[in-house]
Amino acid sequence: MSKIPIGIGVVGLGRAFVLMLPTFVKDDRVRLVAAADPRPQARARFTQDFGGASYETIEQLCADPNVELVYIASPHQFHAEHVEIAAAAGKAMLVEKPMAITLDECTRIVDVVRQSKTILVVGHSHSFDGPVQHAARVLEAGSYGQVRMLNALNYTDFMYRPRRPEELDTAQGGGVVFSQAAHQVDVARALLGGMVDSVIARTGRWDESRPTEGAYGAMLNFEGGAFAMLTYSGYAHYDSDELMEGVGEMGFLKERCGHEQARRRLARLDSVDEGHLKQESGYGGEHYRADDRPPAPFHQHFGHAVISTDKADIRLTPSGLMIYSDHERHFEPTPHRPVPRCEVIDEIWNALRHGRAPMHDAQWARATTEVCLAMLESGRSGAAVPMRFQVPALFSAI
Amino acid sequence: MSKIPIGIGVVGLGRAFVLMLPTFVKDDRVRLVAAADPRPQARARFTQDFGGASYETIEQLCADPNVELVYIASPHQFHAEHVEIAAAAGKAMLVEKPMAITLDECTRIVDVVRQSKTILVVGHSHSFDGPVQHAARVLEAGSYGQVRMLNALNYTDFMYRPRRPEELDTAQGGGVVFSQAAHQVDVARALLGGMVDSVIARTGRWDESRPTEGAYGAMLNFEGGAFAMLTYSGYAHYDSDELMEGVGEMGFLKERCGHEQARRRLARLDSVDEGHLKQESGYGGEHYRADDRPPAPFHQHFGHAVISTDKADIRLTPSGLMIYSDHERHFEPTPHRPVPRCEVIDEIWNALRHGRAPMHDAQWARATTEVCLAMLESGRSGAAVPMRFQVPALFSAI
Repeated sequence: MSKIPIGIGVVGLGRAFVLMLPTFVKDDRVRLVAAADPRPQARARFTQDFGGASYETIEQLCADPNVELVYIASPHQFHAEHVEIAAAAGKAMLVEKPMAITLDECTRIVDVVRQSKTILVVGHSHSFDGPVQHAARVLEAGSYGQVRMLNALNYTDFMYRPRRPEELDTAQGGGVVFSQAAHQVDVARALLGGMVDSVIARTGRWDESRPTEGAYGAMLNFEGGAFAMLTYSGYAHYDSDELMEGVGEMGFLKERCGHEQARRRLARLDSVDEGHLKQESGYGGEHYRADDRPPAPFHQHFGHAVISTDKADIRLTPSGLMIYSDHERHFEPTPHRPVPRCEVIDEIWNALRHGRAPMHDAQWARATTEVCLAMLESGRSGAAVPMRFQVPALFSAI
Repeated sequence: MSKIPIGIGVVGLGRAFVLMLPTFVKDDRVRLVAAADPRPQARARFTQDFGGASYETIEQLCADPNVELVYIASPHQFHAEHVEIAAAAGKAMLVEKPMAITLDECTRIVDVVRQSKTILVVGHSHSFDGPVQHAARVLEAGSYGQVRMLNALNYTDFMYRPRRPEELDTAQGGGVVFSQAAHQVDVARALLGGMVDSVIARTGRWDESRPTEGAYGAMLNFEGGAFAMLTYSGYAHYDSDELMEGVGEMGFLKERCGHEQARRRLARLDSVDEGHLKQESGYGGEHYRADDRPPAPFHQHFGHAVISTDKADIRLTPSGLMIYSDHERHFEPTPHRPVPRCEVIDEIWNALRHGRAPMHDAQWARATTEVCLAMLESGRSGAAVPMRFQVPALFSAI
């Protein structure tokens, strides 16, 4: 069965699904066979676009024998329950990040996966990005010596894009720690070996009209002494894509770096409109427009990142790695692959067709969530928070 | 007497003096009138270059009535003693940073200044840089709202420039925390109001052959909730002047960004040669060459820095401020002045000729040293270190 495409059943036709859609459509190793969503118009659109089955509930979807893998893209708070349902049906799973927003729920998922012996991959996160994986392999090979420090920063307009109310409520998984640190921490853990010892952070709630964390600074201390300095602003005016050759997060060249537009657009809406707009521009909504752009010419990325080792500094770019070593510098391109986020499918494919354990499994995702939760805790208390659930990064095993 | 130039007596004709020399020579408000140094060849050179008096000891220099201000550029460990001698003689003082390397010595200096009612300025540090002062004034004016966060980073070859043994010994004030964090912390304090609440840091000693701190990451928490994320590597291969339009620390355009040269040059020397080389290329040494370049076309700087406020992000550049605000962006040039580091002379001149208290006084310098010492302590213990000696930044008072 090693060449049969993996039949994907989607649970939740929301924003995360839209962002994964180009991958599902373009990667021959998978095909969309079913979807579950409470919104009739989203289901109708799915059937129209892909000809697959559509269901109101995840239970119905999990009873569909064409579904080999369930893509759980429902709101965060349903992930644990949905994992239990899919695992009980013997399905493999791709779970949208964050896997869950409490450690108890993460552990519940880890236990379900262990007991059911199913495959679960958490993604997409930017630690799947080609240059991140490339750098992780270069570092793991060891020729540049010990890994010492990572500096990563990202300045975006995250807080001023149209939001649903729950996206601005930390208790429901809103704010930049759950949505954005989940990426940056995942990248840092991938590059520095995975095993965080302790976390200290400051979080910023700087705009009363958007009452959740919109910025943070975090210091992650790793086993063996390496550390990561992470800075993120979702309130930004400055656009750090300036440091990424003008390429945006999704790998497209921006016409112009800058975040002036976001506040201007938002100022034209009132808060009711904002949630409505977001819903209607979602899949199946009246303002939904399929992304029909040609493939992005660059890799996706999550901002400026420099890794310091004993013998080199390695800077991530949207095309590969800029490696500054003791006596020279060179650019190592990361091979460009036409399917965006195909690295997620690599992990799923290797797990389901070749029996290789995925790196971004439930334990990996719990460890990243543990760091994010510690950032929130440290932001409140000011104290360092020790880690208990960390697991190593094993890129070479993928 | 308001237009009479200030007669400067230099104590210690070392590297710091060489870096200040263009200022002393070009700024009409000061003139070099005397120097004290134990090395006869340095004294001879001084007399030859400037026609002033030269002395073996600071006591002799302080007895010279032509000396109005003593520039204390002796090794750090002598600063406190030298301040006492100069203050007892009623001289004003410019003290090289770090003012001292223990809090006790700093407090000794603060007390001496208070009791003797003399003027003491500590400098040069990069918080004097034109764009830093420009930004501090813009922030203080308040039209961009509350100051929230600073991200600053600098990747240099500091550790691989020729060094004397004491420069690689932390106990003697060596390493990047005393030499380089002293700048970065001074800049952060100037921009975020000065009052640090607590400090947490990691320090890196990554090269056994240079056994002192060569890198750090630090989080500075300020009163009122702002915080600074500071990253520095003196082991760098990557050259962060790439982010500063290719302009180096001293305001000159680099032919090429990069640190490959530093390790290559150092590899050609053995450790005996290294100290000798440094000595002989110092003032009065056989390899000394006066800096006869035309004035630097850009401002001096200490690397990439972005300040986030409620209504703008402000990025320092070697020419001024890039201000990204809610609805537009603009560049505000910082007026270029032909005399490098003339801002130090501004503070001295205003203090001695106009009776205005300097901002970079002994208490300010003690506060910066307190942060640097806390970085070392936190680097050892992993814990946050509370501050006790902070004083506010009052740029508008200068």
